Amino acid sequence: MLYAVRMQVDIPHDLDPTVRDETIAREKAYSQQLQRGGEWAHIWRIAGQYSNLSIFEVESHERLHEILWNLPLFPYMTIEVTPLATHPSAV
Amino acid sequence: MLYAVRMQVDIPHDLDPTVRDETIAREKAYSQQLQRGGEWAHIWRIAGQYSNLSIFEVESHERLHEILWNLPLFPYMTIEVTPLATHPSAV
Amino acid sequence: MLYAVRMQVDIPHDLDPTVRDETIAREKAYSQQLQRGGEWAHIWRIAGQYSNLSIFEVESHERLHEILWNLPLFPYMTIEVTPLATHPSAV
Amino acid sequence: MLYAVRMQVDIPHDLDPTVRDETIAREKAYSQQLQRGGEWAHIWRIAGQYSNLSIFEVESHERLHEILWNLPLFPYMTIEVTPLATHPSAV
Amino acid sequence: MLYAVRMQVDIPHDLDPTVRDETIAREKAYSQQLQRGGEWAHIWRIAGQYSNLSIFEVESHERLHEILWNLPLFPYMTIEVTPLATHPSAV
Amino acid sequence: MLYAVRMQVDIPHDLDPTVRDETIAREKAYSQQLQRGGEWAHIWRIAGQYSNLSIFEVESHERLHEILWNLPLFPYMTIEVTPLATHPSAV
Amino acid sequence: MLYAVRMQVDIPHDLDPTVRDETIAREKAYSQQLQRGGEWAHIWRIAGQYSNLSIFEVESHERLHEILWNLPLFPYMTIEVTPLATHPSAV
Amino acid sequence: MLYAVRMQVDIPHDLDPTVRDETIAREKAYSQQLQRGGEWAHIWRIAGQYSNLSIFEVESHERLHEILWNLPLFPYMTIEVTPLATHPSAV
Amino acid sequence: MLYAVRMQVDIPHDLDPTVRDETIAREKAYSQQLQRGGEWAHIWRIAGQYSNLSIFEVESHERLHEILWNLPLFPYMTIEVTPLATHPSAV
Amino acid sequence: MLYAVRMQVDIPHDLDPTVRDETIAREKAYSQQLQRGGEWAHIWRIAGQYSNLSIFEVESHERLHEILWNLPLFPYMTIEVTPLATHPSAV
Repeated sequence: MLYAVRMQVDIPHDLDPTVRDETIAREKAYSQQLQRGGEWAHIWRIAGQYSNLSIFEVESHERLHEILWNLPLFPYMTIEVTPLATHPSAV
Repeated sequence: MLYAVRMQVDIPHDLDPTVRDETIAREKAYSQQLQRGGEWAHIWRIAGQYSNLSIFEVESHERLHEILWNLPLFPYMTIEVTPLATHPSAV
Repeated sequence: MLYAVRMQVDIPHDLDPTVRDETIAREKAYSQQLQRGGEWAHIWRIAGQYSNLSIFEVESHERLHEILWNLPLFPYMTIEVTPLATHPSAV
Repeated sequence: MLYAVRMQVDIPHDLDPTVRDETIAREKAYSQQLQRGGEWAHIWRIAGQYSNLSIFEVESHERLHEILWNLPLFPYMTIEVTPLATHPSAV
Repeated sequence: MLYAVRMQVDIPHDLDPTVRDETIAREKAYSQQLQRGGEWAHIWRIAGQYSNLSIFEVESHERLHEILWNLPLFPYMTIEVTPLATHPSAV
Repeated sequence: MLYAVRMQVDIPHDLDPTVRDETIAREKAYSQQLQRGGEWAHIWRIAGQYSNLSIFEVESHERLHEILWNLPLFPYMTIEVTPLATHPSAV
Repeated sequence: MLYAVRMQVDIPHDLDPTVRDETIAREKAYSQQLQRGGEWAHIWRIAGQYSNLSIFEVESHERLHEILWNLPLFPYMTIEVTPLATHPSAV
Repeated sequence: MLYAVRMQVDIPHDLDPTVRDETIAREKAYSQQLQRGGEWAHIWRIAGQYSNLSIFEVESHERLHEILWNLPLFPYMTIEVTPLATHPSAV
Repeated sequence: MLYAVRMQVDIPHDLDPTVRDETIAREKAYSQQLQRGGEWAHIWRIAGQYSNLSIFEVESHERLHEILWNLPLFPYMTIEVTPLATHPSAV
Repeated sequence: MLYAVRMQVDIPHDLDPTVRDETIAREKAYSQQLQRGGEWAHIWRIAGQYSNLSIFEVESHERLHEILWNLPLFPYMTIEVTPLATHPSAV
């Protein structure tokens, strides 16, 4: 099951800088672990924004939600999920 | 240069059915030629909609525009273009 | 896999009345067949609108798209798809 | 009387963590009591979001409002209410 | 059960003038019958627009939908329904 | 002169609870005084929201503004004003 | 009573050119008559658009609606009405 | 050169009350000086809102920006600027 | 006086092809004449859309409106105008 | 590669004034260095707003993102990026 997920990050300016840096570091490690495991298939930076466009390949909505809910930056994110199917023109 | 492109198709209901079918057939051939050439890197159907999410890898904005402008369904499409960069967490 | 789907119908006023009536009749038969088969779990009318809110339980995005794409009224619909997961408070 | 209710939760990041956890626990107990009583007919998590889609079956607008107003997380929620009627295609 | 209903009318400019006038006349008669019956409690013109704001007092969502669906101008309307409850400050 | 007014209340979560409660009490008294005086003709709770829909009957825009500006909760409200005229179908 | 009114004109491209020109001529005469009568206090073109921003000074919502409803171009207009009051900083 | 300017004021609730009152007093003096000088041609309160609609008559965009940028309440305002031209129907 | 102008073109699919081609040819000639005269300072294609972003340098709002109103494609355009001033960081 | 970039600045009112002033000073120096280097081709103030419209000419999306991400005011900005191509009517 493929999903396009757009994540926009908006960290409050008054968040403790140590908490902030530590959260960003955990986010990166968490993302890379899922990329290596194959479930987080693509991640691209949206040019000029603190946002990414990602493609996930997971077995179910449950698993997708579990992954996103546990993102260290989840409390500061606005997330859009788009379910993707095979396109009839795809080669 | 990577771009995410979302294309939403809205064919007028009073378009001549022959023109319609012929245009859709040309659209498919055109898309597959560009996929085989490597510039149209991904195309996914957005579930439940006459829309796709695509990833293009082309040399310039000029080339991206040339490709999209010549889509046989271009006159019936609403198109959003998002420039993508490498994400610092990408493995 | 559960999905909430909102379908808003907007039939062009100049559509041939016979085509219109025949399409609506086919839509009803198609919907009822899928309800009986268990994939179209719920359908409710949104009060005051030519719209419905439905719950689908299908095996994949592919199957959901196949069902929606083949709705007789699909060309006249605006559709929103929302993937649903189990809620931790559900009893 | 059926209502679709979408609740989006946005807890301020500077809320006291004890208050936060205690409120979430009360929310869960409150929801489960109403689910067991039959008024809160369905609750689903919207995948990737701190949101739910719920179906309520209550006797009146007054009762629906009373239930929602007393949600422990109500002050942090954005709520949309959609009145539902029987669909003519429902089997 | 009280509902605020906003109806915005947009009659296509190429509708046959006889059909148009006849439909508007039926709309008026239909509305006045429901006003006299007590279900259509208030109707106000929104100044400067081909729109009205109405208050309905009916027994259920089903009945509200039945009334609105049968408006002669329904195919040309955009309708918003808002369920109303007693306000704690109402005297 | 009739006006429909929609007031949505959003009290900051870090407002002092005593100030908050005292402001809400003053709001209620203020509203009831104007209802008894006849200028605040209707007030309904919008089901599921900290919002109301009200109808005012006042002599001028000046008077409407004076009433709304002096609402104790005004600083925490988003307000929409819609001027209403007699509807030609009103009985 | 002062009102700001924004009128955006969108004449269908397939309207008969004679009807179109005759309607525009009647619109101009109608507007100038009301300007001379003092009720249509200001009319400005919004630069780059087929739109105007106007200020009306009329005795009531009823009169404002009557004026706008009878605009020859009314069927092709999107209209926004904003009631204006005296500003406390006005000299 | 004429411009319509809509200013919506949103003062943070935790701003120091002395700063707040002093800023509002300076805003009023500043506005009245410009009104007397003829550049701030009109200012109206938008009924029911902490907003105004104003008309400026200034020699250039530069001058308009200078005036608005120096408004004491500028940091708390959302501002929309609309350039106005002579309307062909103006008498 | 500088203005950013975004023009989005939407030609109706049932416009006569000869009229269409002739209008597009006149649009090009008209634009190039104004570019050569210096008033139409820049014109860029927005990649993937039938739209352009342009910079105009003209003496007044009147002149800008005159130029845009006379665009051969004006009836099929949605236009946004943004007045520009010197930026304090510009070198 | 040309890009139109619109940057809207929204500095929190409770940011330390020294930090604020120092950040604005660094922003100006940073912008001027890139203007002198030729990558930041144009910067205009949007009249009446704490916003600018800029044109960048850079070699890639990567470089554009690097420039914008390192803007001292980036954490307080809302940024829109539009890729631009040559217009067929450009002289």
